[in-house]
Amino acid sequence: MESPTLNIRALFEPNTLAVIGAARDENKIGYKILKNILDGGYKGKVFPVNPQGGEILGLKAYRSVEEINDPVDVASIVIPAKFVFEAVRSCARKKVKYLTIISSGFSEIGNNEEERRIVSYAREHNMRILGPNIFGIYSAAASLNATFGSSGISPGRVAIITQSGALGIAMIGKTSVENIGLSAIVSVGNKTDVDEADLLEYLVTDPHTRIVLMYIEGVRDGERLIHALKKVTRKIPVVVIKSGRSERGAMAAASHTGSLAGSDEIFDAIMRQCGVLRAENVEEAFNWCKFLAHTPFPAGESTVIITNGGGIGVMATDACEKYGVRMYDDTLALKEIFSPVTPEFGSTKNPVDLTGGATSAHYNSALEAALKSEPIQSVIALYGETAVFDAENLFSLIDENSRRYKEKKKPLVFSIFGGEKIENCLLAMKKGEAAVYGDVYQAVSCLGSIYKYGHYLKEYSDGVDEAAIDPSAIDRVIDQALKEGRTFLLAHEGQAVMRSAGIPIPQTRIAHSLDEAVQAAEAIGYPVVLKVVSRDILHKSDAGGVALDLEDKREVVDAYQAILRNARAYKADAHIEGVEVAEMVEKGLETIVGARRDRTFGPLIMFGLGGIYVEVMKDVAFRALPINRKEVMAMVKEIRAYPLLLGVRGEEKKDLDGVVETIIKVGTILQRCERITDLEINPLLVYEHGRGVKAVDVRILLTSGKKGA
Amino acid sequence: MESPTLNIRALFEPNTLAVIGAARDENKIGYKILKNILDGGYKGKVFPVNPQGGEILGLKAYRSVEEINDPVDVASIVIPAKFVFEAVRSCARKKVKYLTIISSGFSEIGNNEEERRIVSYAREHNMRILGPNIFGIYSAAASLNATFGSSGISPGRVAIITQSGALGIAMIGKTSVENIGLSAIVSVGNKTDVDEADLLEYLVTDPHTRIVLMYIEGVRDGERLIHALKKVTRKIPVVVIKSGRSERGAMAAASHTGSLAGSDEIFDAIMRQCGVLRAENVEEAFNWCKFLAHTPFPAGESTVIITNGGGIGVMATDACEKYGVRMYDDTLALKEIFSPVTPEFGSTKNPVDLTGGATSAHYNSALEAALKSEPIQSVIALYGETAVFDAENLFSLIDENSRRYKEKKKPLVFSIFGGEKIENCLLAMKKGEAAVYGDVYQAVSCLGSIYKYGHYLKEYSDGVDEAAIDPSAIDRVIDQALKEGRTFLLAHEGQAVMRSAGIPIPQTRIAHSLDEAVQAAEAIGYPVVLKVVSRDILHKSDAGGVALDLEDKREVVDAYQAILRNARAYKADAHIEGVEVAEMVEKGLETIVGARRDRTFGPLIMFGLGGIYVEVMKDVAFRALPINRKEVMAMVKEIRAYPLLLGVRGEEKKDLDGVVETIIKVGTILQRCERITDLEINPLLVYEHGRGVKAVDVRILLTSGKKGA
Repeated sequence: MESPTLNIRALFEPNTLAVIGAARDENKIGYKILKNILDGGYKGKVFPVNPQGGEILGLKAYRSVEEINDPVDVASIVIPAKFVFEAVRSCARKKVKYLTIISSGFSEIGNNEEERRIVSYAREHNMRILGPNIFGIYSAAASLNATFGSSGISPGRVAIITQSGALGIAMIGKTSVENIGLSAIVSVGNKTDVDEADLLEYLVTDPHTRIVLMYIEGVRDGERLIHALKKVTRKIPVVVIKSGRSERGAMAAASHTGSLAGSDEIFDAIMRQCGVLRAENVEEAFNWCKFLAHTPFPAGESTVIITNGGGIGVMATDACEKYGVRMYDDTLALKEIFSPVTPEFGSTKNPVDLTGGATSAHYNSALEAALKSEPIQSVIALYGETAVFDAENLFSLIDENSRRYKEKKKPLVFSIFGGEKIENCLLAMKKGEAAVYGDVYQAVSCLGSIYKYGHYLKEYSDGVDEAAIDPSAIDRVIDQALKEGRTFLLAHEGQAVMRSAGIPIPQTRIAHSLDEAVQAAEAIGYPVVLKVVSRDILHKSDAGGVALDLEDKREVVDAYQAILRNARAYKADAHIEGVEVAEMVEKGLETIVGARRDRTFGPLIMFGLGGIYVEVMKDVAFRALPINRKEVMAMVKEIRAYPLLLGVRGEEKKDLDGVVETIIKVGTILQRCERITDLEINPLLVYEHGRGVKAVDVRILLTSGKKGA
Repeated sequence: MESPTLNIRALFEPNTLAVIGAARDENKIGYKILKNILDGGYKGKVFPVNPQGGEILGLKAYRSVEEINDPVDVASIVIPAKFVFEAVRSCARKKVKYLTIISSGFSEIGNNEEERRIVSYAREHNMRILGPNIFGIYSAAASLNATFGSSGISPGRVAIITQSGALGIAMIGKTSVENIGLSAIVSVGNKTDVDEADLLEYLVTDPHTRIVLMYIEGVRDGERLIHALKKVTRKIPVVVIKSGRSERGAMAAASHTGSLAGSDEIFDAIMRQCGVLRAENVEEAFNWCKFLAHTPFPAGESTVIITNGGGIGVMATDACEKYGVRMYDDTLALKEIFSPVTPEFGSTKNPVDLTGGATSAHYNSALEAALKSEPIQSVIALYGETAVFDAENLFSLIDENSRRYKEKKKPLVFSIFGGEKIENCLLAMKKGEAAVYGDVYQAVSCLGSIYKYGHYLKEYSDGVDEAAIDPSAIDRVIDQALKEGRTFLLAHEGQAVMRSAGIPIPQTRIAHSLDEAVQAAEAIGYPVVLKVVSRDILHKSDAGGVALDLEDKREVVDAYQAILRNARAYKADAHIEGVEVAEMVEKGLETIVGARRDRTFGPLIMFGLGGIYVEVMKDVAFRALPINRKEVMAMVKEIRAYPLLLGVRGEEKKDLDGVVETIIKVGTILQRCERITDLEINPLLVYEHGRGVKAVDVRILLTSGKKGA
């Protein structure tokens, strides 16, 4: 049997293709698609299907897909919604395996039932469906433009997957204006079957595709998407635009696509975890894609800014900090490299200032010097219009240096700013591959995107770290709770789960006599806390049933007797099960570790600063499970309060290892015990380095649905 | 005598102007400036000055400014640095009052001495200087282009003040490409005399200027700038680009301009306080300026998005949240307004979706409906390219609707996205006034800028709130400390300052006998704390000299006796001055209130969450002094932890009034007592509403320089 990837390959590289609904009327989509297929130079055979038969665009039209003699790899269906099911049945009889249903009028307008009928029929007959409600598919690999968008798609290296068909159509036009060549563009429409994960699986194997751009509004199967994204980003960069970032935008997206947008914070964290480059808007995404398509990866990180004006140099420096671009700052080396090429009153510091008197010759020399220099790995060249500059050479200055830099695998970005000549140069350069922008921030943002991706490639780690826990012990606790009709665990049950996972908790014992209480206190070590244990006494403190900070045997004896006396006085008939003897928990840094099952992304883990600040300061970080130690460290470092773990104000470093291990353990519990839906340790007290952590309070919620692993 | 504003007016509107250094060589700046003045149609008289005499560009050239018979309002000096001083002396003899020194080669390259010599000479002779190291000045009011930039400046409504001459020159070209008309553009260069504050004072009186755009790298006299900015923003919007935002950028700016960039956080807070619109980069600033120049202020805030695609609609919704644009969401009203004009399968919810089948007629009807509707005050219209849309009507659709909306004072922004036709339309529309952008975020950002400024106009408050404090009492404390050679106050001195300002502090009394101690405890109220007071005992706790949480008379008596006994045992010859009786401070929310004199902006006030979190979470807000209650409230609301003051987790609301009053009082102290350089209350404990605040610890630093007010 073919692997799923090969399955999808046929969608992008069919040998034969039927257009069901091919039309003679130039205003119809069924005409436009056939025309685009023919104009685009499709390499396979195409069969128009139209109940009237005859000829369309010079090809014999078949009355039905079943009349075609050749086997049909893909059928593109472009007929009104109400006729689609019949066409799908025809395709099944013809043994067509892949359908791209362009027709709309299904779940996106509430017609869920018809959509479900088609999908389940297709499944029964081993057919895969892309759509419905899509604009079609373009694939450079097969020179196939089976879309009703523009006919003039230039083949190239960027593959686009879009959840919005309308935006996709407009994107086709825009990529052509911006000279962004496409290896593929496809809309996923209602995602009844083939989804982004399937498409990613294929695209990562497509030699034409060097970058994937995704426009996402809502995610259906987040776990599959994560898996697919991780696979792709190991090989090529993925740029994502996710709309519905804001609360109101998420509502709009939900009503528009029927899929849940989910929390943007979590989406963002997961994209980071997957090494995805997330763009805020289409302009930024297109800039990155074009840049990444034509720019070789640099060997190192040191960037030099070359400018003819201090002001734009300072702005570029700001932008470097914003986009994480590291500036080269060996002053002596810079002086050596740039002194020979910097005019009087210029500066060889970074930004290297060629002064307002700079001509193209000065730029050429400085760029040459930077290119030759071993430690300089990329260059940001800025030009603000001056009267002395020989503007007629601007185009060739950019063009030739860009080529030279490309050969040496050093990224070079330009920002040029000024009047009409500059504007015309910018327009003219759009047709080429050089990285030239009107604004300094755009230029640096592009350079930042390649470095950001480079960091991910260097730092990601593939393994999954699991802790040695005892799931069967946890399952027994869960069984008991569910048997008692509870979907939450009691305090001591939560503690039992912590023990089964080896997460330290405060020591406690139940004493049934004075002797036992004293023994327990001695075993735990002073000071201790005593608390009455009785189902009949809910408010233990009110009943005088709690004694804190007991420092020796005598105090334990006094307190034990007082508690029993108080309890009886409070409620004479109370059933006293015993007295809990617990260690007095030392103060530590309050953190929180949580895990839960997200409707979109499945099991997630969370870490943050604990106490009242969790809610107000929202200083928490998320990751999807499974996870490894490297990912955990990245998550821990993300919180603003991270310096507290390193120790501030002369405090000792905190036990980071303890935090990381606890997160791994909590992650393992959620992964192994499927009936746990939520687990929260709050606070997890973190002590000085080497002194561990302590889970003081644990809240665990259950579902009765699934049995543990 | 003329007011300073009128003084500056002559720089922008001179009747006569001499160009000292006017040249015949077309490559020289002295030629370019004269040519620009003549080409620009300057309304006054212009006198070239050149030691060779003769004629330049058809005008008689004078050998010296003193040879000119007419009075000379402004002399523009364009000669090498070493000759400038002599020219300035000539100007003094000729009684020229205003000099624009274009020449460079002064403090910007370390030649401080010559610059100082020129400035002090000019001051002695009542001359004002713009520059040196500038590109000149353009003023639409006088049709005067006395710059060496482009000759084709179109007059308009935007005034630009730039600290970078090079950037200014390039901006002139860019404004022309973007069709941004200028009322003035001027660079401040080395700011030896005339600075941004002077220029703002003039520009606010200039009827041509409707928006001011400033490019700032570093601020010299921040207090004057704040004063001037506040005056201007009450009348017209000010857009600021400040570079040197990042640490590294600030260093680059400092080495480039010699002025301190200062903390970006403080700069940003002060710009907010002054109602300035801060743009991140030049592109954003230009977009805002052009938009603000041509867009009337809307009467209200409700925005509707009209789109032909769900995806771009969702993105615009996200952008609305980002830029603070309020979306209209009366679903019933929206249905009533848009039902008649929305095609089948469209949506009348906001975003209003005209579907991919929309033509220009659909857009026209929907825009007409929105224009007519009372509650809709502005519209974001989005178009993603489709095959069915009649693209030939796109230009007129945008142009005509923009005009209609302008008449009704409703802002209308377009974002259009697609292929070549769209791109050509965008380029063509640049020449007009309509607000059309290629990216959704740009369009919404512009609309956001007008609303942001509108909010400021609606909410700013002009007054200054001062507290009734006793400065002479504070001065006495300061005198004493300085007399003792200290530039800091001791704890009890700090407490005295708090008392003089009416800021609550924990009650304390010094007792010299057991009776006094008991009386003090009864007066303060139990529980109390006792502490030995002795210069000979530094570590009071070690000496057994502290007793906490004393709950009644008996405990006070015991503790008093024990403390004296312990003190004597600890150090037999210790001089015991008495025993401090203090209230046990109740727990409260820990906040911090600080005030200090900033090198750039003068007296500042700060508020934040206290404790360890100040340093790590950096959750603090700043404002410049003087200040009023409204500004204080805005500052308090800015901190992330603000919800803690409102009460979270069922807690009571905290005493916000107490916080606000304390901030006003601390501000007043710093304003009235000039010898205090730093004052920090940490923690200021905040109790429940109505129960006040308490300044537990106060740190005050002094300078011996100035005497208090």
